[in-house]
Amino acid sequence: VPLAERSQPGHPLGLHRVLDAKKRLPQAAEKIDNTLPIYPNEILLDVERLNIDAASFVQMEKETGGDPKAIAAIVQGNCEIRGKQQNKVTGSGGMLVGKVLQIGSAYQGPLSLKVGDRVASLISLTLTPLKLDAIKKVHLPTHQMEVKGTAVLFESSIAAKLPTDLPEALAMAVYDVAGAPATVDGLCEKGDTVVLLGAGGKAGVLSCVAARNKIGPGGKLIGIEPGAKAAEDLRGLGVCDAVLQLDATDSAAVHSGIHGATHGKMGDVVVNVVSVPDTEMSAILSANPRGKVLFFGMATSFTKVALGAEGVASSATLLFGNGYYPNHAEFAISLLRKSAPLKDLFLRRYGAA
Amino acid sequence: VPLAERSQPGHPLGLHRVLDAKKRLPQAAEKIDNTLPIYPNEILLDVERLNIDAASFVQMEKETGGDPKAIAAIVQGNCEIRGKQQNKVTGSGGMLVGKVLQIGSAYQGPLSLKVGDRVASLISLTLTPLKLDAIKKVHLPTHQMEVKGTAVLFESSIAAKLPTDLPEALAMAVYDVAGAPATVDGLCEKGDTVVLLGAGGKAGVLSCVAARNKIGPGGKLIGIEPGAKAAEDLRGLGVCDAVLQLDATDSAAVHSGIHGATHGKMGDVVVNVVSVPDTEMSAILSANPRGKVLFFGMATSFTKVALGAEGVASSATLLFGNGYYPNHAEFAISLLRKSAPLKDLFLRRYGAA
Repeated sequence: VPLAERSQPGHPLGLHRVLDAKKRLPQAAEKIDNTLPIYPNEILLDVERLNIDAASFVQMEKETGGDPKAIAAIVQGNCEIRGKQQNKVTGSGGMLVGKVLQIGSAYQGPLSLKVGDRVASLISLTLTPLKLDAIKKVHLPTHQMEVKGTAVLFESSIAAKLPTDLPEALAMAVYDVAGAPATVDGLCEKGDTVVLLGAGGKAGVLSCVAARNKIGPGGKLIGIEPGAKAAEDLRGLGVCDAVLQLDATDSAAVHSGIHGATHGKMGDVVVNVVSVPDTEMSAILSANPRGKVLFFGMATSFTKVALGAEGVASSATLLFGNGYYPNHAEFAISLLRKSAPLKDLFLRRYGAA
Repeated sequence: VPLAERSQPGHPLGLHRVLDAKKRLPQAAEKIDNTLPIYPNEILLDVERLNIDAASFVQMEKETGGDPKAIAAIVQGNCEIRGKQQNKVTGSGGMLVGKVLQIGSAYQGPLSLKVGDRVASLISLTLTPLKLDAIKKVHLPTHQMEVKGTAVLFESSIAAKLPTDLPEALAMAVYDVAGAPATVDGLCEKGDTVVLLGAGGKAGVLSCVAARNKIGPGGKLIGIEPGAKAAEDLRGLGVCDAVLQLDATDSAAVHSGIHGATHGKMGDVVVNVVSVPDTEMSAILSANPRGKVLFFGMATSFTKVALGAEGVASSATLLFGNGYYPNHAEFAISLLRKSAPLKDLFLRRYGAA
């Protein structure tokens, strides 16, 4: 028996599910419609797991003192009130894993899926209609939640089938930040000096491996990571020329550390994947005048970057990170398949969640 | 008689004037020291005029109902409490015009100035120690204020001598947004299709002229400007192939307008210089998949850009505007010297303030 559908197809970008008085795209909307049945050009997912964006999860941990029940209540409340999981403070979301339940009869989007496929969404939760029946478990270390619910993909939404050779929780952790290593690969050139801030975190480690692959043995890669354990993990991969244990909010210390490690040359490419605020100047001051600075942390402030660069007369090219990059999911997974130490590290950190 | 100085030189980036418990750069600081005498590697200016950043001025107009006295009180209060003019809501500042009063005996910065030179600061007011004795007049149309006070330049700060062939208020208006046309010149290539959002404003008009000069007659330039008068001014310059009177916060309308005007090709370069919030998606949706999108408006939100691009799977390159660009002041002034209609428009709008 085919599942029910509404009568007319919706807008490819999801405008038809926006409930605000002023029509905006679903991400900018205060409230979106998360109800069923789907429109005939949508895809319905049976949601099993959420992977909350790091900046958002850290904010909720601070707000609740790290209480899993209270974090679950915030997420549940967001979905009930706004029809989506979007952190009220950071504005960020995350992604989900689920099984394809229904493909609308008029769907003409880019995805080749069939009912029963297990997929991860590659667009943000901030624009995904999400209805949660239950949050079964919150995993603090991985920022993931086991849930029961449904989500809707629009015709413009993208998703990736989960690999069968890697644990699902691991694939999801990788997909969540897949835009970063793919963008780093696109930005770096052979022989570049690269500086990574937040190098020991999930996006940081993947980006370090991508950078080293691209710059080759003649390039230089310096990681900045404040945590002792994460710094040790990163050193264990053998991809960095130096791992500096510095607080990325201390721009004077970072500038001085990078100046020393590069003998004053500074970075050709600087990548900031830090999840806490006030690390913009450290990144800007780490770049040379013809350098490129890529901001991937969701705690980045536009004005702090734009005015900060002006204030120190930096002529570096300043780039927004973008969670989407062509073939980013496949690229990130391929990094793990090609590096046993990286795969082992990710299995230890994210494989068992 | 030489003016007094403190005994030891300060930090080139101005760390020595930060009064917060946690040491940060002056721009990030809550409070900086605006008192005299200067440190021996600083420059002291006799301040005559402030040019408030557009996003900041519009915010203060909204907050006060457009009352010049109330706006003056806000600016005066900021300088008294924080030692600098930085808008509490937008985080942005502006720039100033003044006369060189004193050059510290140990100054080794890049500026070749002498006492008595009239200059405009090219770094933001958000990091400039500023002491205001009086605000004499607020000019609502130009976002400028006539003041009496003193400001300090650090060794890393930059400033430009005022041209003698143009009114000061005009030069200041141009310098305030000089980063935009210079960056546009750097980004565009011959034959490009360029989309400008906020095209009829100060930064918009200069950027349109810079873009047309660079893309040549074979390129295509489309301006988006909601105001009838500003759109008419822009059309009068004869540099745009089309000027569309659209609200840049209406992303569906902008996308459709640009789709029509470019026959579906969309922009190779999209420049957003709009001063109001929620115009990020209009810019992103105006670019083609290999396009570049430059955000210059101070109301830009980092998360709205980064997550917005991800949400529609845009692979465009997303760039921060930066108020500094090498030789930007000279470049912007040269645009006026080379185009009589542009100079006339700026004289009409900003010449008499």
